[in-house]
Amino acid sequence: MPDQVGLGAREAIADLFYAYADNLDRGDIAGLGRLFTDQVHVDYGPHMEPLTSKADLVEALQRGQDELFSATSHHLSNVRVRLEDDGIGAQATAYVYAWHRYRSGAPDGELWGRYDVGVRLIDGDWCVMRLRLSCAGTRKLHSDHMHPIR
Amino acid sequence: MPDQVGLGAREAIADLFYAYADNLDRGDIAGLGRLFTDQVHVDYGPHMEPLTSKADLVEALQRGQDELFSATSHHLSNVRVRLEDDGIGAQATAYVYAWHRYRSGAPDGELWGRYDVGVRLIDGDWCVMRLRLSCAGTRKLHSDHMHPIR
Amino acid sequence: MPDQVGLGAREAIADLFYAYADNLDRGDIAGLGRLFTDQVHVDYGPHMEPLTSKADLVEALQRGQDELFSATSHHLSNVRVRLEDDGIGAQATAYVYAWHRYRSGAPDGELWGRYDVGVRLIDGDWCVMRLRLSCAGTRKLHSDHMHPIR
Repeated sequence: MPDQVGLGAREAIADLFYAYADNLDRGDIAGLGRLFTDQVHVDYGPHMEPLTSKADLVEALQRGQDELFSATSHHLSNVRVRLEDDGIGAQATAYVYAWHRYRSGAPDGELWGRYDVGVRLIDGDWCVMRLRLSCAGTRKLHSDHMHPIR
Repeated sequence: MPDQVGLGAREAIADLFYAYADNLDRGDIAGLGRLFTDQVHVDYGPHMEPLTSKADLVEALQRGQDELFSATSHHLSNVRVRLEDDGIGAQATAYVYAWHRYRSGAPDGELWGRYDVGVRLIDGDWCVMRLRLSCAGTRKLHSDHMHPIR
Repeated sequence: MPDQVGLGAREAIADLFYAYADNLDRGDIAGLGRLFTDQVHVDYGPHMEPLTSKADLVEALQRGQDELFSATSHHLSNVRVRLEDDGIGAQATAYVYAWHRYRSGAPDGELWGRYDVGVRLIDGDWCVMRLRLSCAGTRKLHSDHMHPIR
């Protein structure tokens, strides 16, 4: 599924969220990495240090796939985009309802939260520079210590 | 997140649903009130009388926040908009998957339903005049007496 | 809710997914049938043979309504559309979080998956020719033998 071709800026940025989920849930972590800039600030919560490079992000997510999750499903909705005046930056937010199945056989984990991202247009493609996950709540998730919604 | 700036009518009306969820889930009930006209018809189900003014709506939702819910998350999808010929009215519907955590410590409540709304363009902003919640089903919700989908 | 009027191709195809869910969840299986071409290829998983005509699809879904489900709710998100060069074909995908209540009184069944569809513009309306359901996972669903995400 080629991204962003023929889409306006808002639609392309919404599609960036969907490409993130699609790559993550199919286990294509290298594909997911291509959605990000080389230097990033990705904060999945207080249970882990923010990730600051694409290489670190890919390594952390690949480890999650290899060690923790046998399947995940990230359902993204409520997408809102605010374009910046410079035409090459935007802030966006999406709700996420995420379901996780564990390799350990632990009960499925669920998360009700949101992603806040900062994105930038680079060589014609919108890329994620900054991502923060915050949560309204979780059920049986491997981490119950998440950033609150603010 | 400023609403509706640079959006077409359909996108602005979808964003109105998302602004509703965002304000509700962050507990900004005054902000939620600003999305509605002064006179409203809001029907959350047969367990409570329809609300007929913005002031009553804000009071009822604020009481829910203060007394009932410690957190909520309203995931809106399947947004469909039908613009009216006059250019200043529309009917719209969105699916809602809503998760609720209770102050009482009761198990989390879930709801699978939809919002049907009537909206109107007033001074350049789309506002909600009418809202009806109906449900396919619920699980451990504080009310199990909801309007059916029709 | 009239479909597709005033929408661009991408929006009309997204709306086709929403019309599918709306008709299915309201039990209007004849209405759902009208979204499909006469000849179809609909594959809901290895637990049943692919359906190859609109008549067979309608019959199978009507039987599900009559015998199995007392209510369902299909929450569609992450919609991505790839238009084909001929202007009358497209491939699209949507995530689905589906909730099912059973006539038998069995516990509610949930499914986290996606629909992949092939659609075609026929006499001004986008119609579904091909649909495949695949799943990241299920909980207490009547079938736990589904196509995996690929």
